[in-house]
Amino acid sequence: MRILDKHQAESYAVEGVEVTRWEQFQLTSTVPFQAMWYEVPAGGAAPLDQHPERELSVVVSGEAEVQASGATHVVTQGQAFLLEGQEAHRVHNRSPKAPLLVLSVYWMPERAGELAAAAAGDGGESNE
Amino acid sequence: MRILDKHQAESYAVEGVEVTRWEQFQLTSTVPFQAMWYEVPAGGAAPLDQHPERELSVVVSGEAEVQASGATHVVTQGQAFLLEGQEAHRVHNRSPKAPLLVLSVYWMPERAGELAAAAAGDGGESNE
Repeated sequence: MRILDKHQAESYAVEGVEVTRWEQFQLTSTVPFQAMWYEVPAGGAAPLDQHPERELSVVVSGEAEVQASGATHVVTQGQAFLLEGQEAHRVHNRSPKAPLLVLSVYWMPERAGELAAAAAGDGGESNE
Repeated sequence: MRILDKHQAESYAVEGVEVTRWEQFQLTSTVPFQAMWYEVPAGGAAPLDQHPERELSVVVSGEAEVQASGATHVVTQGQAFLLEGQEAHRVHNRSPKAPLLVLSVYWMPERAGELAAAAAGDGGESNE
């Protein structure tokens, strides 16, 4: 078992957002996605983003306001949001006080279903 | 964009642990893993678990004590832990008050690296 800890990892700032990419953990051969934490300070926003990867984001603390496909969604702690490949999105932190921490995983859409179908089909993961 | 919300999903109890599986969201063809939330009440524990899938778990709230491979690890909110396939594990919530909420994604190990390599190699996900 391995713990992935943002506070023991290298981060960098992108327009005021602290980004901690999981490439540094060297998990590529064992995990079917890339990942990163990003932290948006109170009152801040991440840059507008658009990329070919699908992206699943989990709000770990704080609250996200996500603009995507012409709509605005509020995503609270513990909720997740799934963006399509090439879906432009911008994440705001409207709180005046609390930082927003998000963990995102992302992957190229092709062949994504194969692994999920394998995980679903074997009857594993039985008791949690 | 789609929001995945535990509170608007079906859950069930497994030995006192509330499990909310993502199969009900019908994401299989678009996401390279299965997923679930599980909530361990204060002072509780999830059953001992062992399965062929690799599993990446994010602590969304509370604090997890994870027993795996003869060691005990404390995993705090925002941290993640990665379990190997077939690695037996048990998750305790030692808090007397706070529930523990975990979001786990899991997948069969075979071919996992292909998607990650594709996501890493295209220069996408550039600005978050």
